[in-house]
Amino acid sequence: MNKNPHSVSELRKMIATGDSKAIKGFCEAVHPAAVAEFLSALTGKEVWAVLRHADPQLRAEIFSYLDETLQVETVRTLERDELSLLLSDMSPDNRADLFKQLPESLRESVLPALAYAEREDIRRLSAYREGTAGAVMTSDYATLSPQLTASQAIEHLRKIAPDRETIYYTYVVDKDRRLIGFVSLKDLIVAPRQARVADIMHRKVISVHVDDDQEDAARTIQKYDLIAMPVTNGNDVLVGIITHDDAMDILSQEYTEDVEKLMAIGGSHETGVYLKTSSWDHFKNRAYWIVGLAALELLSGIIIHNFEATLRHMLILALYMPMLEDTGGNTGSQSATVVVRALALREISPKDVLKVLWKEFKIAILLALVLGILSWGKVIFLSQGTTIPAGYTLVKIGAAIAIALSLQVVTATLIGAILPLGAARMKWDPAVVASPALTTIVDITGLLIYFSMARLLLGM
Amino acid sequence: MNKNPHSVSELRKMIATGDSKAIKGFCEAVHPAAVAEFLSALTGKEVWAVLRHADPQLRAEIFSYLDETLQVETVRTLERDELSLLLSDMSPDNRADLFKQLPESLRESVLPALAYAEREDIRRLSAYREGTAGAVMTSDYATLSPQLTASQAIEHLRKIAPDRETIYYTYVVDKDRRLIGFVSLKDLIVAPRQARVADIMHRKVISVHVDDDQEDAARTIQKYDLIAMPVTNGNDVLVGIITHDDAMDILSQEYTEDVEKLMAIGGSHETGVYLKTSSWDHFKNRAYWIVGLAALELLSGIIIHNFEATLRHMLILALYMPMLEDTGGNTGSQSATVVVRALALREISPKDVLKVLWKEFKIAILLALVLGILSWGKVIFLSQGTTIPAGYTLVKIGAAIAIALSLQVVTATLIGAILPLGAARMKWDPAVVASPALTTIVDITGLLIYFSMARLLLGM
Repeated sequence: MNKNPHSVSELRKMIATGDSKAIKGFCEAVHPAAVAEFLSALTGKEVWAVLRHADPQLRAEIFSYLDETLQVETVRTLERDELSLLLSDMSPDNRADLFKQLPESLRESVLPALAYAEREDIRRLSAYREGTAGAVMTSDYATLSPQLTASQAIEHLRKIAPDRETIYYTYVVDKDRRLIGFVSLKDLIVAPRQARVADIMHRKVISVHVDDDQEDAARTIQKYDLIAMPVTNGNDVLVGIITHDDAMDILSQEYTEDVEKLMAIGGSHETGVYLKTSSWDHFKNRAYWIVGLAALELLSGIIIHNFEATLRHMLILALYMPMLEDTGGNTGSQSATVVVRALALREISPKDVLKVLWKEFKIAILLALVLGILSWGKVIFLSQGTTIPAGYTLVKIGAAIAIALSLQVVTATLIGAILPLGAARMKWDPAVVASPALTTIVDITGLLIYFSMARLLLGM
Repeated sequence: MNKNPHSVSELRKMIATGDSKAIKGFCEAVHPAAVAEFLSALTGKEVWAVLRHADPQLRAEIFSYLDETLQVETVRTLERDELSLLLSDMSPDNRADLFKQLPESLRESVLPALAYAEREDIRRLSAYREGTAGAVMTSDYATLSPQLTASQAIEHLRKIAPDRETIYYTYVVDKDRRLIGFVSLKDLIVAPRQARVADIMHRKVISVHVDDDQEDAARTIQKYDLIAMPVTNGNDVLVGIITHDDAMDILSQEYTEDVEKLMAIGGSHETGVYLKTSSWDHFKNRAYWIVGLAALELLSGIIIHNFEATLRHMLILALYMPMLEDTGGNTGSQSATVVVRALALREISPKDVLKVLWKEFKIAILLALVLGILSWGKVIFLSQGTTIPAGYTLVKIGAAIAIALSLQVVTATLIGAILPLGAARMKWDPAVVASPALTTIVDITGLLIYFSMARLLLGM
């Protein structure tokens, strides 16, 4: 934003004076995405005071780069005619996305003002469930008939290019719009001018089904390095494409969701720009989990109270409860993170459970060994002056604490690995086994191990 | 992998019988990325036993989709001539990446077998520091002279297309190779045949500098929805391009690193496929942090021991230490996560520190209120039977615990927000303030608050 020659207050002055030419110039000076970034500091009303001076096509493009909250805020200030013009100029996928965000009343008032084809397009694109390939695809693609020659195909693409999101990948369909092949513009240009599309086209087309998960679709685009990928319905009929830039945005969004789930933050993440989300909404997203965890911690509390007499008799055990819980939480979070990531990147699947557990077990044994020795040393060092009951030595108590801690490291690591795998098998999102949730769960196992060891090794 | 008609054991049988035609057919049957995925189950030697039957061009393409560990394992089994042929057929960026991974001796033996231009290209591309735009760019781009007409330009692109990663975006350079403009193939096709490139081209080109961070480059590509972006050196000379698919892979890799840092997992993440990384390597990546944290926990241990007399006198305080620490860790991790993500998505910058702290403060107050009341209720409920020293009531002790916990929620939330912002200001990666590290840090503040409150409110 700083690179832009204008400041927000300068822009506000331009709006106040209504200097149409200057504002138009500002809209044309840089990339639409950069203009949109600049506008994001304004209110919806001010945004429109700028955009109405731009050419309709550019206006729609800049508008599409705004975040959804600001888009809705802006269109709420518009006259019906302004809104229907704006919608006409937007690309089909952006238009359908905006439409889904509009309040019911606004939708009903604007639909009749649109052309029949656009109305149908909106209805069709906004019919798919959020999170599916259908909900993120666009209908702005180019198709070719297999009978065309390469030079006819190029001529056709030249004509339709201005209205299409991409003409670099085109799809070959039969008379029932069934997808039968794919040609890139590069293929067409390199081919002899009289070659038939049917002979140039690739017959094995990588595609997804409208109901497939949007994340799977984006990963397929990433895996095959595609610029765009066709979306088909049950009968192999081409219904849309997903472009590389949308795939990138989907992956960014999914990663954000993964991280936030790992950290036990709930809520919808699609429109949540940090500074623009109210404190109250932030609070609700976080409180949801934190309060749930506080409830789960009741179990830990009950266990601790059950062993109150033990702790009273041997206070030193109480002093090391926090260390035990920290270590279990940390090692469990590590294995959970690694497994969640490996699942997300499709490096492992739920059926690899035994392989994963065996690997985690070996890692855990090594960690347990190191941490066990360290914690034994820590007890000897820290508790020299601590009063311990007669008949016990610090060395022996330290050993019991260290053994309990080592067992806890192994248990927590395995629990951290198995919970996301279990979630994935149940077709849940593995990341729901959030790190704070995991920490709270392994606290419970840790305390049980700790007091069992105290009973077994110290005869408490 | 399951979609492929062959199983790994079937493929191994084909290798054993050396059925060249069948193996060649297998390589051509599906997308190179899918072949590579299938091969990833094999050893380096077996991979080559398959690839040597494929046409050199296709072979290089399949090979480029293998993960780096397997690539190196495979080339170690090759004769020098086989290796130099393979390198010649790879795209410049993949070739340079592989080259950087090769052992010194292999590099020296293979370089003389390459053509001069390829050798120079490798030297140039592998000279850039890991993590910069220069290290991920490719030299496979198309340039145009501004004097050409649109039809001459298309003719030129048709000729060079087979050797270029993309011809959809082409860059216009002057006689010193300085970048002066950009035209897309769509622009060229739509333009009148006799129009000059100089008149069609866009003069404002979005580009990055070779030394810029690869993540910034990838985010620029994402922001502007580009298929490729030019990379220039200090004198505006075009030296390479970064393509959309590489940008997507960079973002995936950076996200993985962010998550693993958040969870305190060290090491390099570039080649680490979960099941292929040895347990020992996994152990080293994790132990690094976990042992460091165990050392930091010493401080908590010292504080707890300092208040041993207090805890002995009022054991109930020891029983709620775990609850205090859990809650602080959870709320601190949440704010750290949200701030790290907002920084990564460029929603905030380090100079927004006051705005962020104010917002987090408001959120923290709400959380502190809810959690304070809950914890007070918890103490009353759980500790009915607990012996407490004469002169105190459970209600009063519960209130002291609840107030300490509320203060800890506010402190931990603010620490969680300020540490990543501070790291970003120091130009460190905000995610180094890993969640387990943060948990350990707020444990210390939590204990200090806890015992101060005990002294102040209960006169201990």
